[in-house]
Amino acid sequence: MTLKHVSYFRIRYSETDPMGTYYNSRVLEWFECGRTELCRATGTPYREWEARGVMLPVIEAHVKYQGMARYDDRLKMTTTAGMSGKARMRFDVRIERADTAEPVCRGHTVHAVTDAAGKPIRPPRWVLELLETGGD
Amino acid sequence: MTLKHVSYFRIRYSETDPMGTYYNSRVLEWFECGRTELCRATGTPYREWEARGVMLPVIEAHVKYQGMARYDDRLKMTTTAGMSGKARMRFDVRIERADTAEPVCRGHTVHAVTDAAGKPIRPPRWVLELLETGGD
Amino acid sequence: MTLKHVSYFRIRYSETDPMGTYYNSRVLEWFECGRTELCRATGTPYREWEARGVMLPVIEAHVKYQGMARYDDRLKMTTTAGMSGKARMRFDVRIERADTAEPVCRGHTVHAVTDAAGKPIRPPRWVLELLETGGD
Amino acid sequence: MTLKHVSYFRIRYSETDPMGTYYNSRVLEWFECGRTELCRATGTPYREWEARGVMLPVIEAHVKYQGMARYDDRLKMTTTAGMSGKARMRFDVRIERADTAEPVCRGHTVHAVTDAAGKPIRPPRWVLELLETGGD
Repeated sequence: MTLKHVSYFRIRYSETDPMGTYYNSRVLEWFECGRTELCRATGTPYREWEARGVMLPVIEAHVKYQGMARYDDRLKMTTTAGMSGKARMRFDVRIERADTAEPVCRGHTVHAVTDAAGKPIRPPRWVLELLETGGD
Repeated sequence: MTLKHVSYFRIRYSETDPMGTYYNSRVLEWFECGRTELCRATGTPYREWEARGVMLPVIEAHVKYQGMARYDDRLKMTTTAGMSGKARMRFDVRIERADTAEPVCRGHTVHAVTDAAGKPIRPPRWVLELLETGGD
Repeated sequence: MTLKHVSYFRIRYSETDPMGTYYNSRVLEWFECGRTELCRATGTPYREWEARGVMLPVIEAHVKYQGMARYDDRLKMTTTAGMSGKARMRFDVRIERADTAEPVCRGHTVHAVTDAAGKPIRPPRWVLELLETGGD
Repeated sequence: MTLKHVSYFRIRYSETDPMGTYYNSRVLEWFECGRTELCRATGTPYREWEARGVMLPVIEAHVKYQGMARYDDRLKMTTTAGMSGKARMRFDVRIERADTAEPVCRGHTVHAVTDAAGKPIRPPRWVLELLETGGD
């Protein structure tokens, strides 16, 4: 089973470049916002994960840039979360124009699950339950 | 044949996060610096590419995060450039600690070749020659 | 008369640093979001300003950092706009914690009013009217 | 007496915006690079300051934007450091075009001196000596 969350945001002027579209690295910041909002929706914000000693450093990122988008464009971001094997988490993200649903970009990040010191750990039971139940 | 370039840089405080390491999106800014310096080394800086009406928007990016690196760490970045099919360019990047050669991250970007209006074009002859000769 | 607008946002992980608080330059990105939302509230989004050939490049910025704020903290941003002399605009911004109203930072930006080519111009009548009426 | 340091850098594509010039917040990241290089030149890199339990959080920043500068432009940054009263440090920065010396921007930051927990402290003797002798 996978968790799914939809959020909306507008592109900041600071996120655009002389080509007139969003600068490529900024997408990874948006992906982070998607993960943050997905976790919040489960009832356990990611900040609470870290407070419980569980961190999710990114170990892999992939982005496909599909279309331009300009300053102040309103975008819809759909984030899904799941396990990748027994020890890693994976978030898939799809971003499209909020008005026309034209694709803007999509991609995914893979995360190690570590303790507060950065040592890889097996995901605690409450993480696995969150992923299965969505926090319900 | 591929073009290859090595450059060095230090991690900015602004590029690090509460985990103590570099923030994941910043790697794509570093990759851009690698492309810029590789182009400069051929004798035709990327700014000159745009002045000639050739742009290289990123259409795909992939990063593997291999190790932590902290504020002020000195990193070595090796960038190689080549065609990806007949119409696209690809840059592969490997970043490691300048002192110990421990891997920090690696990845690649794929680029469309477009005119100033963003329309895909076949790479002009001078681009193909640059890639073959390295600007010599 | 001055225009005033209140907006809310959360701090991104990418905006924090190893001290655990927001990185200082990010405040100027937030100020930009405040200007964007204030303009939208008048009925003439800033994107429409640029479409009409009026740009507001920042010529001065000042920030006082008053308190720490962490990843995911919810902040309240109050932005006011007015003229600074006959040819310049000024936006004052105050950011505080949304829950406790403790101050986080405050500051202002001063902007030239220019045409699309960057040449300083007197603010058009519709700009002055917006500032006087708030778009009503 | 004040400490003074000169460094050079090029503007990244990621640091520019649709107006074609550098985005305003990025200047504060450059100021940080100036502080870093000035500290390194004294023989005590800022990372070593933090290792000794002395931090310099920014409490005030001011920037005057004086001229445009584009992607890949080479800039010269002059940073000077001194005390501001008995408990604070101040860095003044001037950035100009490396080729023509035309001004790009200038400003300053004021810093609290704190221990590792963020509590304000009087600057240790070695800091005052660095500022007086420049590390000689």
